[in-house]
Amino acid sequence: MEIKSSTKYFAELVGTFALVLFGCGAAVVSGVSLTGPAGIGILGIAFAFGLAVLVMCYAIGGISGCHINPAITIAMLVAGKINGKDAAGYIISQLIGAVIGAAVLYCIQKGLTGWIPGEWALGSNGWGEGYGAGYNTSSAFIAEAVLTFLFLFVIFGSTGKWGNGAMAGMAIGLTLTLIHMVAIPITGTSVNPARSFGPALFAGGKAMSQLWLFVVAPIVGGIAAALVWRVLEKK
Amino acid sequence: MEIKSSTKYFAELVGTFALVLFGCGAAVVSGVSLTGPAGIGILGIAFAFGLAVLVMCYAIGGISGCHINPAITIAMLVAGKINGKDAAGYIISQLIGAVIGAAVLYCIQKGLTGWIPGEWALGSNGWGEGYGAGYNTSSAFIAEAVLTFLFLFVIFGSTGKWGNGAMAGMAIGLTLTLIHMVAIPITGTSVNPARSFGPALFAGGKAMSQLWLFVVAPIVGGIAAALVWRVLEKK
Amino acid sequence: MEIKSSTKYFAELVGTFALVLFGCGAAVVSGVSLTGPAGIGILGIAFAFGLAVLVMCYAIGGISGCHINPAITIAMLVAGKINGKDAAGYIISQLIGAVIGAAVLYCIQKGLTGWIPGEWALGSNGWGEGYGAGYNTSSAFIAEAVLTFLFLFVIFGSTGKWGNGAMAGMAIGLTLTLIHMVAIPITGTSVNPARSFGPALFAGGKAMSQLWLFVVAPIVGGIAAALVWRVLEKK
Amino acid sequence: MEIKSSTKYFAELVGTFALVLFGCGAAVVSGVSLTGPAGIGILGIAFAFGLAVLVMCYAIGGISGCHINPAITIAMLVAGKINGKDAAGYIISQLIGAVIGAAVLYCIQKGLTGWIPGEWALGSNGWGEGYGAGYNTSSAFIAEAVLTFLFLFVIFGSTGKWGNGAMAGMAIGLTLTLIHMVAIPITGTSVNPARSFGPALFAGGKAMSQLWLFVVAPIVGGIAAALVWRVLEKK
Repeated sequence: MEIKSSTKYFAELVGTFALVLFGCGAAVVSGVSLTGPAGIGILGIAFAFGLAVLVMCYAIGGISGCHINPAITIAMLVAGKINGKDAAGYIISQLIGAVIGAAVLYCIQKGLTGWIPGEWALGSNGWGEGYGAGYNTSSAFIAEAVLTFLFLFVIFGSTGKWGNGAMAGMAIGLTLTLIHMVAIPITGTSVNPARSFGPALFAGGKAMSQLWLFVVAPIVGGIAAALVWRVLEKK
Repeated sequence: MEIKSSTKYFAELVGTFALVLFGCGAAVVSGVSLTGPAGIGILGIAFAFGLAVLVMCYAIGGISGCHINPAITIAMLVAGKINGKDAAGYIISQLIGAVIGAAVLYCIQKGLTGWIPGEWALGSNGWGEGYGAGYNTSSAFIAEAVLTFLFLFVIFGSTGKWGNGAMAGMAIGLTLTLIHMVAIPITGTSVNPARSFGPALFAGGKAMSQLWLFVVAPIVGGIAAALVWRVLEKK
Repeated sequence: MEIKSSTKYFAELVGTFALVLFGCGAAVVSGVSLTGPAGIGILGIAFAFGLAVLVMCYAIGGISGCHINPAITIAMLVAGKINGKDAAGYIISQLIGAVIGAAVLYCIQKGLTGWIPGEWALGSNGWGEGYGAGYNTSSAFIAEAVLTFLFLFVIFGSTGKWGNGAMAGMAIGLTLTLIHMVAIPITGTSVNPARSFGPALFAGGKAMSQLWLFVVAPIVGGIAAALVWRVLEKK
Repeated sequence: MEIKSSTKYFAELVGTFALVLFGCGAAVVSGVSLTGPAGIGILGIAFAFGLAVLVMCYAIGGISGCHINPAITIAMLVAGKINGKDAAGYIISQLIGAVIGAAVLYCIQKGLTGWIPGEWALGSNGWGEGYGAGYNTSSAFIAEAVLTFLFLFVIFGSTGKWGNGAMAGMAIGLTLTLIHMVAIPITGTSVNPARSFGPALFAGGKAMSQLWLFVVAPIVGGIAAALVWRVLEKK
């Protein structure tokens, strides 16, 4: 029996909600220690985002394919693996889920005495002076585009005709961990327009004005991977 | 051949014992370094609780389903996947296992020169001034309820008709790791009334007087997930 | 076609060699940073031992069952899953492998300017004043015995009639990681007489005089698990 | 339908590109924190290289077998599992991929204000005074040769007739993580001539003059494992 589109959209919404709450939540709440044991650092944040995708792949992969990322949905559209109507439904659900994730995180942070949301609050992406290690726009764009290319390359490879369906979720999630290990000091790591949109909506300011890069670069990288993979599978 | 109820209850007891001894043990013994290499920090404690569930899923999942958490057992009762008598047997076994886990940890800590059990000793959960980063009651409740909702959402998804049985244990365990990465500075992370009960019994004081939240919030979140999933599977 | 006993013994030798070289090697070479990036700490050492077992389960599990630990071999003997002659062959091979592992590590450390092997050198196990956090003999014995019990409980559960063969190696390896996360500050974590024997042979002194506990406690815990599991499976 | 050689070579190129960009990228960009949360340290770098192999095994393992390492390709040639022409094609592709990976990393680093490529830049391998903890040539050679032996031992074991194909990628990747946990302070960890070649080409100087060891030692260790395994499988 075919799974209803509305069930798929709801799964995408919850999945993207979980990605933002787990990933940005871990970064904001536990990234740096306030008291007690040491904070999770870049390695922990990288695992938070990657494991969030890993667990969601096994929770909703059988329902919606677990895109939870507009760059993936658009790459799948280019690859002919989703139709235009469902792609639109997926992307809208992902954006809503990301906003709810950021909203819940905001509610939790409000209950922390002395909390002041800075620029790029709630785990927003960004770059340049004052963000991370201070990489420039060119580095930010290259990192986001090339790393999204590799993300989609692993997705197409592990779920395609030469892949292993059962292990794909693990490979895909851990690829996102790897991407974060490289790019957190550069852009905070997006490779996902929805994940950037949720926190930026609450943070405003610089996070909002830099949002464009986290829409354009991941989509460019994702489409490039879809085109490369189309050639590979036809050979 | 049907597995006897007493075998299932014993498995739940050992599983919850292991969860408390591994999770709280790692936090108490190795969370912060006393001498030698660096302590495991929030990331390590998060992995300890999550991997404890992961390994127990593969050790006793085939016997009892590896709930080792009353909030999960109650959600399964609401979802119609366990009967009332077994649910009671599970929960009693989980509470006994958690108490034994805390007792063994107490015996080990007694052998450490100069050890003074503070308030919230043995890895007890709590919140507010003097606990973690100092989040308020509202943040604590939201975090515990919403994160238990996501925990059960992954459990229902990965073990349900669209899931992959072999990989479910990995997904479920790593979800608990994610939950800890977000909530350790807020509540120490419970999402499991039994895990909170064991240490609180020995710690007394604030740990005992704050126990209610770690009973109510996880059960609320778990029941919500059971209801949502019931709608999803019927569609 | 039956696999020859000599092939199994050789696999056990290489496996135990790898366990000691990876586990003790990571602790000694990378546990604390000398220069450059931060050392791996207790969390990293815990992963080193656990992942060494995990990878060896998939490398030699199909040949010898990947015991690489006399306490496991003795528990399997009690459980009736290996005969006496093979058990002896396994244990001798494990001890030889552990000694070679410690020897290679010694050769590598000799090439480090200014290296002085202290008491408990090469990752030897121990306890009491001057070792780890300074736990007493009673804590050391309880920790080693109870944690070996849980180790074997997971091994019997995940490889038994209710388990999942493909995932067992992951569960077993990560259980050893959990055990290390609890016990490194107490005893350095053995649960394996061969792993303690190799480094102690080179370290001598206290490491040698405390070796008895790392023989007795793991064997006690392992036999207890074998007896418990025998009851469970017969019910 | 047979997969074309050109498709396999392209997969090896992308895989080695990803290994260098993820592994060296994580080390260079995130190894030590510049600002914000703590750097990933030796443990994080070890996971970066290991997980890069793990995810690529599931992305391209079904296409090319995912060698992405000339020492593996040569060991496979000795084991009779690849022909000479394909071995040459694989190795050339791996070298090209590694150079492109280092080039992209160089482009990203150029956009970091105040970045000065030091000796052994871009994650180059090396040893001796001024590199890591300062181990001598003998330690460096032993570590690289013995650890490559164990790497190939796990590869042959987990992919051979007694192994489990689905789990092999996980075991192989995590073995590389273990190897890094032991050898980062000694040589930075190569066990892969292509991974050393890419960064050395850009770093020049000492990285280039020490390149020979990272060609010779891994090949020696890999061939030894191929010969040992040939004996084991014939018994």
